Amino acid sequence: MRPEDSRLNDLGEFALIDRIVALLGDAAARDIVVPPGDDAAAWTTSDGTHGGDLAVATIDALVEGTHFRRDTMSMADVGWRAVAANVSDLAAMGAEPQYLLIATLLGPDATVEDIDGLARGIAEGCHAHGVRVAGGDIVRATTTGLSIAAYGRARRTADDIPALLRRGGARVGDRVAVSGTIGAAAAGLALIDAGRGDEAGAAELVRAHRRPVARVALGRAAVAQDVRCGIDCSDGLLQDLGHLAERSHVGIEVALAQVPVHPAAAALLGAQAALDLALGGGEDFELLLTGERDTLIGLETVDLPVTLIGRVVAEHPGEVIAWAEDGAVYEPPQRGWDQTRHRGDGHTGRA
Amino acid sequence: MRPEDSRLNDLGEFALIDRIVALLGDAAARDIVVPPGDDAAAWTTSDGTHGGDLAVATIDALVEGTHFRRDTMSMADVGWRAVAANVSDLAAMGAEPQYLLIATLLGPDATVEDIDGLARGIAEGCHAHGVRVAGGDIVRATTTGLSIAAYGRARRTADDIPALLRRGGARVGDRVAVSGTIGAAAAGLALIDAGRGDEAGAAELVRAHRRPVARVALGRAAVAQDVRCGIDCSDGLLQDLGHLAERSHVGIEVALAQVPVHPAAAALLGAQAALDLALGGGEDFELLLTGERDTLIGLETVDLPVTLIGRVVAEHPGEVIAWAEDGAVYEPPQRGWDQTRHRGDGHTGRA
Repeated sequence: MRPEDSRLNDLGEFALIDRIVALLGDAAARDIVVPPGDDAAAWTTSDGTHGGDLAVATIDALVEGTHFRRDTMSMADVGWRAVAANVSDLAAMGAEPQYLLIATLLGPDATVEDIDGLARGIAEGCHAHGVRVAGGDIVRATTTGLSIAAYGRARRTADDIPALLRRGGARVGDRVAVSGTIGAAAAGLALIDAGRGDEAGAAELVRAHRRPVARVALGRAAVAQDVRCGIDCSDGLLQDLGHLAERSHVGIEVALAQVPVHPAAAALLGAQAALDLALGGGEDFELLLTGERDTLIGLETVDLPVTLIGRVVAEHPGEVIAWAEDGAVYEPPQRGWDQTRHRGDGHTGRA
Repeated sequence: MRPEDSRLNDLGEFALIDRIVALLGDAAARDIVVPPGDDAAAWTTSDGTHGGDLAVATIDALVEGTHFRRDTMSMADVGWRAVAANVSDLAAMGAEPQYLLIATLLGPDATVEDIDGLARGIAEGCHAHGVRVAGGDIVRATTTGLSIAAYGRARRTADDIPALLRRGGARVGDRVAVSGTIGAAAAGLALIDAGRGDEAGAAELVRAHRRPVARVALGRAAVAQDVRCGIDCSDGLLQDLGHLAERSHVGIEVALAQVPVHPAAAALLGAQAALDLALGGGEDFELLLTGERDTLIGLETVDLPVTLIGRVVAEHPGEVIAWAEDGAVYEPPQRGWDQTRHRGDGHTGRA
């Protein structure tokens, strides 16, 4: 019996990461362009005393049971999704993704068919996101999963500022925008779980769960327009906005009525459930950006809407408050995400 | 019942990797400076039409049960070892390691103490190898393990040749050298398993198992002396030489009497067992290099011997033959490594 088990569960992912970084001491690279704690790390690739390209890199792990289930997606879907989730971290930095390194864990019941499906899904995900596999490793394990490291590049501006989206880049007065629609992936999973994945209208939601798309072009366009704050929506809208608020030492207010819930999710699951999934469901891999109103609106394309959903305020630094049109503060259902980021206090700012 | 299970086991790691790379099609980056298949991948980091620094990158996964056991090493040892094994792939390219990205998998019985030990071991491994952690991820899984991606850099020479050690760089007439002593890590593990880890003389072998050191300085010195072929000894001396022979389309002959077996292993386990562990045991992370005799000898330092053990020949391309002083060809015991690399044919070249 190990006495610490409960302490580990109590800590949670983010406290655990903080603990590890503290224990690493000066083995953590705190002086690079983007140190541990953002969507990806970045460092200068030249020896020059000024300027030079930036390398942007990130690592993720997806394992069966925790991040995917074989009864809701094929191994090809798993391969695609792992690529998309990883590339999304570079998109969230506004970087240009280039190469992936992939470590594959094969559980005891893995088959050649599984490997083939995984490889096909990875190839399709690479094509869709404009990246290629530069190397990898394959190991036997008690679980099946993938760990992917993605590597991309970014530049410095003419005045030597890293052209990157940062979690800490939100400024008071910024508007907050989100791309696409939110909650589709979680709605797709909920429908599959309810045996409703084949219902009319469900296909797009199921696809959002199995074949999400990272917003690479949007991230790069945002950086080119001098937007400097962003994150991808992987943990759920409110939690991811919480990361921005915390890192930027600002408050964020969200107008629930503006959140672009997927219409099929609302139609099939009801408006409230669809909203809950949008705010807490995560894994849509849309981008959350803050910046000037006109700049954010100007990022919208015919393929991808960009919707203003809130604003950055000086009040309640580190906290996100989401409120309804009647002024009520949103109280999330007891789901997987960290409530400490969303302590409502009745504040009634407007997006 | 899945019918393909046995096929997967029959395929083996290397055939599986070839299969995956084939399925990736043009999603595999075949046109970069070092494509999939070497110790690490390498690509140019500048947009320039010539020259430019090279990024060198690799990924590995270590999981409990397959790559480490909690009864032979502490979690701090696991952390150190994961860093060393990963950095070794960059050392084997002659690259300068810089940054690590670390994905940590926490099994159901992981404790806060485990995490703390892991972080301390990673920090110690980073200090020993001159690298730092730039980012990471931490996930719940059914197994405990680490996936590490390492990033480093290398240069092009004045005549625009990548200054790297390649598996395919061996030339007929080259001598073959190995650094340090071989078989120490496997001997240390064998002694622990036999309950003999505390015996006099065992400490250095046990340490080689728990705290191996990647040969970063040697790899860089070799590249600086225009050595262009190398690999790290991670799968076992004969198997790793087999990779060089196969990639370089040459034969390799090894003189068993020259192989620098660790003296403590021979003393504690007997000469034949120590030799078997040296040739097949792996995980020493010493470097295997081929090149001109005087160049290889000149790489030796007061801290690290470099021993000539064989030569590169035109005969039996893709195969390694190891022979004793009496002319007998070495027949390995039936252990984990791939016999197809070592088909002896009685050839009697001399190192």
